[in-house]
Amino acid sequence: MSSTRRSPVILIVEPSGGSNRRHNPELAMIYADDLGVTRGDGIFETLLVRDGAARNLERHLDRFVGSARMLGLPVPDTGQWSRATAEAVAEWEDAGGGEASCVWTYTRGRESTGRPTGWITVKPVPEKVLRQREEGISVLTTPRGYSVTPALPVQGATGGQEPPPWLVTGAKTLNYAANMAALRYAVAKGFDDVIFTDDGRVLEGATSTVVTVTGSTLRTPPPGRDLLPGTTQAALFSHATAHGWTCLEEDMDVTDLLAADSVWLCSSVRLAVRVVRINDRKLPDTTDGVVIRELLTAALG
Amino acid sequence: MSSTRRSPVILIVEPSGGSNRRHNPELAMIYADDLGVTRGDGIFETLLVRDGAARNLERHLDRFVGSARMLGLPVPDTGQWSRATAEAVAEWEDAGGGEASCVWTYTRGRESTGRPTGWITVKPVPEKVLRQREEGISVLTTPRGYSVTPALPVQGATGGQEPPPWLVTGAKTLNYAANMAALRYAVAKGFDDVIFTDDGRVLEGATSTVVTVTGSTLRTPPPGRDLLPGTTQAALFSHATAHGWTCLEEDMDVTDLLAADSVWLCSSVRLAVRVVRINDRKLPDTTDGVVIRELLTAALG
Repeated sequence: MSSTRRSPVILIVEPSGGSNRRHNPELAMIYADDLGVTRGDGIFETLLVRDGAARNLERHLDRFVGSARMLGLPVPDTGQWSRATAEAVAEWEDAGGGEASCVWTYTRGRESTGRPTGWITVKPVPEKVLRQREEGISVLTTPRGYSVTPALPVQGATGGQEPPPWLVTGAKTLNYAANMAALRYAVAKGFDDVIFTDDGRVLEGATSTVVTVTGSTLRTPPPGRDLLPGTTQAALFSHATAHGWTCLEEDMDVTDLLAADSVWLCSSVRLAVRVVRINDRKLPDTTDGVVIRELLTAALG
Repeated sequence: MSSTRRSPVILIVEPSGGSNRRHNPELAMIYADDLGVTRGDGIFETLLVRDGAARNLERHLDRFVGSARMLGLPVPDTGQWSRATAEAVAEWEDAGGGEASCVWTYTRGRESTGRPTGWITVKPVPEKVLRQREEGISVLTTPRGYSVTPALPVQGATGGQEPPPWLVTGAKTLNYAANMAALRYAVAKGFDDVIFTDDGRVLEGATSTVVTVTGSTLRTPPPGRDLLPGTTQAALFSHATAHGWTCLEEDMDVTDLLAADSVWLCSSVRLAVRVVRINDRKLPDTTDGVVIRELLTAALG
């Protein structure tokens, strides 16, 4: 399909509140001293664009603002980012439109200016994602390899069950080298993705939230602490609850995954992809996948 | 001082082996789809430039190649990077010269091309660094807040005491958001830097290696596992050993820091900065700091 080769729309968002500017994707855009590239010091969000609109906008805005606060970045103006998103999506539609991913990136900016850098990219949904939505994915479960200490004797900290502030746990930062490495590891072992565990407890995918379906009950591991709260899972649970499903945030282990009617990895652009194999175990197809996909489509408005 | 406002020298290093190109730092250089900026998917090294040459070159090249391997990046051509470094430093000298920092950055490159991006920046040593070298620093000790599991029941892994490969522990990646956040945290509490601990064990600074001096013995926590091996500390230990010092890699706790003659944070450009306060405890000045600084200067050639 030629759709993956369509040129992205890039819109530079001026943090000072000036006019947004279209940028030619075939021209360089970021300066060599931008802390986004020299230290990964920035945040991002990825939204689904469908039928000419960015979906689940409020939840992405909330997490974006939360991430900025955790990194001590100037809090982005949600009105400005909403308008810029609409503008970028309108440009995308003018250029032919179709389902797309919309990425917001916001960095601490150039060392030499101290002003944040922000931009929006709208680009086609990758082929691989379309295929995974259709065919499902195989998943390797594996310990994540580190444990976050929730309660620290930190000088001057307020105490409680909060991870230390410098870990910026819960912020969606540009620090995705480990997530990317985990995906390469999975692929090298013949899988599509991983589900991380910690001391047997199911955590999350490399870039997604785990959801199980059993009868009319949806379950996900409790978000927060050392799990990034999932915007797609949250939309799904909110909508499903309103339509008679039972939605629970509960600790689960790999046995619970294997015992569920079905297991899904939820993320903004892949939406819900069905896990068809966990390690060496093929999962039975006992849930009507169409129901879950329709539920999620409706949830995203 | 005006030195901090001198324009950097930027040299683009072509991973394909083509000619290196000077780049005007006042022009954008990186494309919006470079995985270095969208996912922090890349590595870096920072070298000291002194008397017209980059110092400790071999150790930086070794770690650079090791980091690339850990991230599954095409292994950089060390001959090419050495020559490019000499070329960038020569340009710097032509433009006035003086002590500088030289940063190599190497990313997975543009999503749309799949070719890595590499460049070298030579820029003045920041004022703050010059001041810290002179005056020393105050340090907050604090648990890092996470523990790396050294031996994992990972499918297909070779076992042993290696951290899981996707954590890319020991690689110097662009994922420095947490390091930067830790420094902001320290500053907010009235300190210059942090020394992380894990279950009482001293680990490292936010961007440096811990070294203590007691009599004619230098000590550092054992590098590797969850500590980035320090190139500056390694150069110091190698040179000091050859000159009659005893150099040990040993676990230590905060009590050991307080009991040492002196405590230093070692990194490429700051070199060795003396810790003058740990938490609420002022450290006595019982070691001749000049000796350590001269030792390090000699170690760096």
